[in-house]
Amino acid sequence: MIEDKNQHRTPLSDLGEFGLIDHLTRNFKVKQPSTVKGIGDDAAVLNFKEHKIVVSTDLLVEGVHFDLSYMPLKHLGYKAVVVNLSDVYAMNAQATQVTVSIAVSNRFSLEALEALYAGIETAAKIYNVDVVGGDTTSSTTGLLISVTAIGQVDHDNEVYRNGAKPNNLLVVSGDLGGAYMGLQILEREKEVYKVNPNNQPDLDAYSYVIERQLKPEARQDIIRLLKDLDVRPTAMIDISDGLSSEILHICKQSQVGCDLYENKIPLDPQVIATCEEFDIDSTTVALNGGEDYELLFTISQEDYPKIKANPSLTVIGYIKEKGEGIHLVTRAETKIELKAQGWKNFNV
Amino acid sequence: MIEDKNQHRTPLSDLGEFGLIDHLTRNFKVKQPSTVKGIGDDAAVLNFKEHKIVVSTDLLVEGVHFDLSYMPLKHLGYKAVVVNLSDVYAMNAQATQVTVSIAVSNRFSLEALEALYAGIETAAKIYNVDVVGGDTTSSTTGLLISVTAIGQVDHDNEVYRNGAKPNNLLVVSGDLGGAYMGLQILEREKEVYKVNPNNQPDLDAYSYVIERQLKPEARQDIIRLLKDLDVRPTAMIDISDGLSSEILHICKQSQVGCDLYENKIPLDPQVIATCEEFDIDSTTVALNGGEDYELLFTISQEDYPKIKANPSLTVIGYIKEKGEGIHLVTRAETKIELKAQGWKNFNV
Repeated sequence: MIEDKNQHRTPLSDLGEFGLIDHLTRNFKVKQPSTVKGIGDDAAVLNFKEHKIVVSTDLLVEGVHFDLSYMPLKHLGYKAVVVNLSDVYAMNAQATQVTVSIAVSNRFSLEALEALYAGIETAAKIYNVDVVGGDTTSSTTGLLISVTAIGQVDHDNEVYRNGAKPNNLLVVSGDLGGAYMGLQILEREKEVYKVNPNNQPDLDAYSYVIERQLKPEARQDIIRLLKDLDVRPTAMIDISDGLSSEILHICKQSQVGCDLYENKIPLDPQVIATCEEFDIDSTTVALNGGEDYELLFTISQEDYPKIKANPSLTVIGYIKEKGEGIHLVTRAETKIELKAQGWKNFNV
Repeated sequence: MIEDKNQHRTPLSDLGEFGLIDHLTRNFKVKQPSTVKGIGDDAAVLNFKEHKIVVSTDLLVEGVHFDLSYMPLKHLGYKAVVVNLSDVYAMNAQATQVTVSIAVSNRFSLEALEALYAGIETAAKIYNVDVVGGDTTSSTTGLLISVTAIGQVDHDNEVYRNGAKPNNLLVVSGDLGGAYMGLQILEREKEVYKVNPNNQPDLDAYSYVIERQLKPEARQDIIRLLKDLDVRPTAMIDISDGLSSEILHICKQSQVGCDLYENKIPLDPQVIATCEEFDIDSTTVALNGGEDYELLFTISQEDYPKIKANPSLTVIGYIKEKGEGIHLVTRAETKIELKAQGWKNFNV
């Protein structure tokens, strides 16, 4: 064989499937007591004893969910894990394991996949989950990542979307719209780069919104906080498609209505400033932007004193009877019916 | 909106993500007692009580793992589920749930996805597993299917690849090489079709091998049989990449050697006839063909009387000490070292 002189770009064909998986997962350590057997057999073996388990799965597709021209592969690996963990936390469960499968074309080098897996490993470490399986295969075009996340929940402690009751409070963690505005910044810089590749963008003013897009975090801390505060939400969902869409999910499945107060929606100052710069209404961004991975939940009014002082939690509305409908109460105190926007990938 | 006059080809953009998932999974029934909550929340909720669980995941990529010019979508959906269940059975576990995610380009219609999901539903019904989750997204090119299969196993009853001991018998279910020869037939017919689209191929003589390729079955029956016979394999794996590769996995992980007897490898007469027609050595096909989804396992010699009369099981070799190496004992009674072939997708 002729020696590859470019040591920094190892073709994937040098490894084959087994070599590749072994290589990429060699640093992964098993930490969860529920992991009996991780990577290396036909299937992982897990033992949750008396706990119920939750399972969630997501696909991330290049050109649809991410753009590698501004998404570093390490960040992508991190984000792919985090967005799945977010679904586990949204069940009021603790995430314990993930499986990660990738389909990748020959244009990716081994070093590129190492960067991707470094991000996966970082997320697994920070969120204390084991990577227990996966599949690595070739694709005819781009990169695709499929993650399945597994978590455990004490019996009868899981929280569904369908338990919201009239007079419950609607609560959201963190702030909204950042991930969407980060995407707008990155898309704009991409266009600038096309025109002038030597331009050095100064993105300091957008650091928060860009991080919300490139390196989102799942709210494991909120699940712990709620447990510590002894607050069990009546319904919960994570915000992946936008506040509006998630409120509609809770209301539809719980068969309730809702009043959402525009002036209560938490927005970071950088989101407001960026919206002004782009001349976009910040409420529209918060309602429809998506990818914030905050938790949206409903609680009994009795629990309000337990959460009211917490800066990470904001009451943004009230659950109503189904017949009262689902509305945004604007700053001008008019009521507008909430409609789903969100996910429109098939129209792209 | 202008009415779509072609009622048989509904564009996916008419539905959006939520409509599409609801539509495709509307017939899926929950049957497993361990399924607490299936599709419809952030995650599925499962309760296995005192059982351990096993989790396996696979990606199937258009143009790499399947060719839609001869793979009907219903068969593809069926196969995508079955190949994952096979991994669960290979742990000596019973499959209970699957999640199915697809990435699909706009060239697919709703009716095409309905056919795919009909196959998924059929497999779920036949193998008695619940479809408890998934993700549906768009892709920029072809079709990709990611399946995660979950199963349960009585405590300490799981079988790994690493338990084979010297003097154990090496046993395989069914017969080998069929799926590979079916693929050769289908590839040949595709070339004929390109030259003359009006040609009506007579494929009766190849019905078995074609079915092995297009509609493989996972050996759930063998797991039940072994339980009924009170035989617990010492090591087990399913044959997805070819007999040779799987033997090497067992030997490597068990730190043993092996003698595989060429004259014992079970071959269907149609496989032998098709190999002769293509002038390919049938042993090479059995060793390296892959996709047969039979079970390969090792048992103590004490268990031999329990399995010897069973037409579904064939003893094909003996486990040896590691130092004796891993060999094929040919019909001419020469010994050839077994080497991995199998998966070479990155070289395509």
